[in-house]
Amino acid sequence: MRELCRLADEGEKTTTSSQELGKRLGISSAQIRKDLSRFGEFGKQGTGYHINYLINQLRQILHLTEEWPVVLIGAGYLGHALAHYHGFQHRGFRVVRVFDNDPVHIGKIMNGVKVQDVKELYKSVLADQIKIAILTVPTEAAQEITDILVEAGVTSILTYAPIQLKAPSFVNISYSDPVIQLQQMAYYLRPQSEQS
Amino acid sequence: MRELCRLADEGEKTTTSSQELGKRLGISSAQIRKDLSRFGEFGKQGTGYHINYLINQLRQILHLTEEWPVVLIGAGYLGHALAHYHGFQHRGFRVVRVFDNDPVHIGKIMNGVKVQDVKELYKSVLADQIKIAILTVPTEAAQEITDILVEAGVTSILTYAPIQLKAPSFVNISYSDPVIQLQQMAYYLRPQSEQS
Repeated sequence: MRELCRLADEGEKTTTSSQELGKRLGISSAQIRKDLSRFGEFGKQGTGYHINYLINQLRQILHLTEEWPVVLIGAGYLGHALAHYHGFQHRGFRVVRVFDNDPVHIGKIMNGVKVQDVKELYKSVLADQIKIAILTVPTEAAQEITDILVEAGVTSILTYAPIQLKAPSFVNISYSDPVIQLQQMAYYLRPQSEQS
Repeated sequence: MRELCRLADEGEKTTTSSQELGKRLGISSAQIRKDLSRFGEFGKQGTGYHINYLINQLRQILHLTEEWPVVLIGAGYLGHALAHYHGFQHRGFRVVRVFDNDPVHIGKIMNGVKVQDVKELYKSVLADQIKIAILTVPTEAAQEITDILVEAGVTSILTYAPIQLKAPSFVNISYSDPVIQLQQMAYYLRPQSEQS
């Protein structure tokens, strides 16, 4: 999906092939065709996929045609960066509420959204029926905030705190941890002599 | 690895099983045993794996026994958050240099490191033989900085800019994009009636 949007943004062509997508994604073209065929008939043999058509079809399948409201908890440096993240635009998500417990941050305007007191978190999320949250709070606050969010009806949480969160099984939790990504790359940093 | 460190931090037990690890990671216990057996004999049937022993062995295998110096480019909100990220501690990485092109940021101290002018990037990275970089620069600057980093010997780049970077095949690039993670979760947000 990201690669398709990049192809569309690059604007050099209107169609792509499973070979090209596979190469960009580091997986086989057969896998691409297999994955896409699960959802329907999108491409023609010899012609490939129309990029914009495929994007729109996948948006519908992935339920990204509407814009999902997102609540952001934690208005520190990372929260500020995320509230202003350009990548959300036209990609299905919008930060509609921001919360913090620090009087220094409460009342600030972040990308058009006023930072609210975290005491209002439960009431606001419930009233707005927000299902998606981004957590940029300190590690020690992450579980408490998660409990409030789940209670208020949130079922998808993206967290930047380096701690495993406990939540019911119907809640999806996604961890963003730079160290995990660095560790995966560090494997390749072994001296040449050690590599098999 | 992350799950193992969590288990160790939780401190409730000293051993774990492929079943427990698999459950925590959402993969089969057979896969865990297969993956670990590629690197050697770590566990005993019926006893399981000694958590701390397994962590130390994996650290050596993944080349995480030493602390890797990391260069951070971009001293804005996200860069500031990463420079102060507690998760790096004791996990094999340390931000040793920070660069920016904005006079507002240059000279600031971030977690003990002075922000340098990006004009010094090439010379510093080359001299320090830094192999790992984290990019938190604006989208339009990301490719130019990548070119400089690769020229200076960096072979692992973790980037937060929502743009695909071009680099030689021996360079590992890892993308951190909150939208991709949100999209994956949004799939599960479809109304119950639509779910198969």
